[in-house]
Amino acid sequence: MPKGIFITLEGPDGSGKSTQVENIRAYFVSNGREVVVSREPGGTSISEKLRSIVLDNANAEMDDVTEMLIYAAARAQHVAEKIRPALEGGAVVVCDRFVDSSIAYQGFGRNLGDQVSEVNRYATGGLEPDVTFFMDLDPEIGRARIGKDVRDRLEQQKLDFHYRVYDGYKALCDKYPERIVRIDASKTIDEIKGDIYSKLETL
Amino acid sequence: MPKGIFITLEGPDGSGKSTQVENIRAYFVSNGREVVVSREPGGTSISEKLRSIVLDNANAEMDDVTEMLIYAAARAQHVAEKIRPALEGGAVVVCDRFVDSSIAYQGFGRNLGDQVSEVNRYATGGLEPDVTFFMDLDPEIGRARIGKDVRDRLEQQKLDFHYRVYDGYKALCDKYPERIVRIDASKTIDEIKGDIYSKLETL
Repeated sequence: MPKGIFITLEGPDGSGKSTQVENIRAYFVSNGREVVVSREPGGTSISEKLRSIVLDNANAEMDDVTEMLIYAAARAQHVAEKIRPALEGGAVVVCDRFVDSSIAYQGFGRNLGDQVSEVNRYATGGLEPDVTFFMDLDPEIGRARIGKDVRDRLEQQKLDFHYRVYDGYKALCDKYPERIVRIDASKTIDEIKGDIYSKLETL
Repeated sequence: MPKGIFITLEGPDGSGKSTQVENIRAYFVSNGREVVVSREPGGTSISEKLRSIVLDNANAEMDDVTEMLIYAAARAQHVAEKIRPALEGGAVVVCDRFVDSSIAYQGFGRNLGDQVSEVNRYATGGLEPDVTFFMDLDPEIGRARIGKDVRDRLEQQKLDFHYRVYDGYKALCDKYPERIVRIDASKTIDEIKGDIYSKLETL
């Protein structure tokens, strides 16, 4: 049985993560690997129910710590029910967002600090991605790409929030240079695919 | 403005907590105090949505850590939106279950250990009750009282789970003798009311 590989994609909305998730899937499928694609928040029935609460614009009164804990709860279920069993079965798991999103959005964006990584260590039982692709894109460009009519509760935050999130991602890149691969997301889709495939070939 | 007072009730289902919540409310109302009565999990719109997920029998696949984090998320919202503002406004807050429930049910019942109090310290921002009444009742008697047809996902757990929860409560009584008042819940409702009122008169 092949060894499971856990790959995550990070970066602002509008940075092209979902397109590259599909390219990564195609790469491993053509290599004969079983691939499980997922996303956060979500990925299981319970986690999707939690996702609907945390992203609902009607829940405007949500406290920042509540938000952080709901994301962590959804992640705990996702890891226990889907990610860990798939990895143990030898699959490649490709996930759109993981703990780094919580550190960037709640730790930096909401200024909650180190409690975010501590709570998430419990949520994941210590599981970390083998490789993370950070889609590096100026937040203003990302926001222009996703348009104005479809924003959820997090996407509606002011631009300075999104710049703090961006600073959080840059801090994570500095902290985990072995794990996180920075991708210039202002390039064309095919150029980005080429950059990602170059990294995948080293695995 | 009077100083806010935070009172919680703990113990197994069927131990008569909700009856005594009403007696405590009556005591303070007759003393001219503003009283806010609440319960966990729940107490706010967002927390009740989380409650419906965590207690739903359909979510049988829920991981223990997920459960612990959902309770903590519901509590964070409850504290931020309802309990803390009421206390700051000088009210008496009477709450059916709080952090001790998570320590007893998830920490001891689910064997999750110390991570439960650590996560809940973030959820509450360090808020602790002034007085906690522990309704001490043998778990088997409590289960017999609530009947067999109305059990939610937690109530359905096997009896050994409920005995671990009971051990958790006893450990909490030993750890916080100043805060937690042990009430013999096998007494009559009026006797229990008398025991509780004796304590309230010392506040």
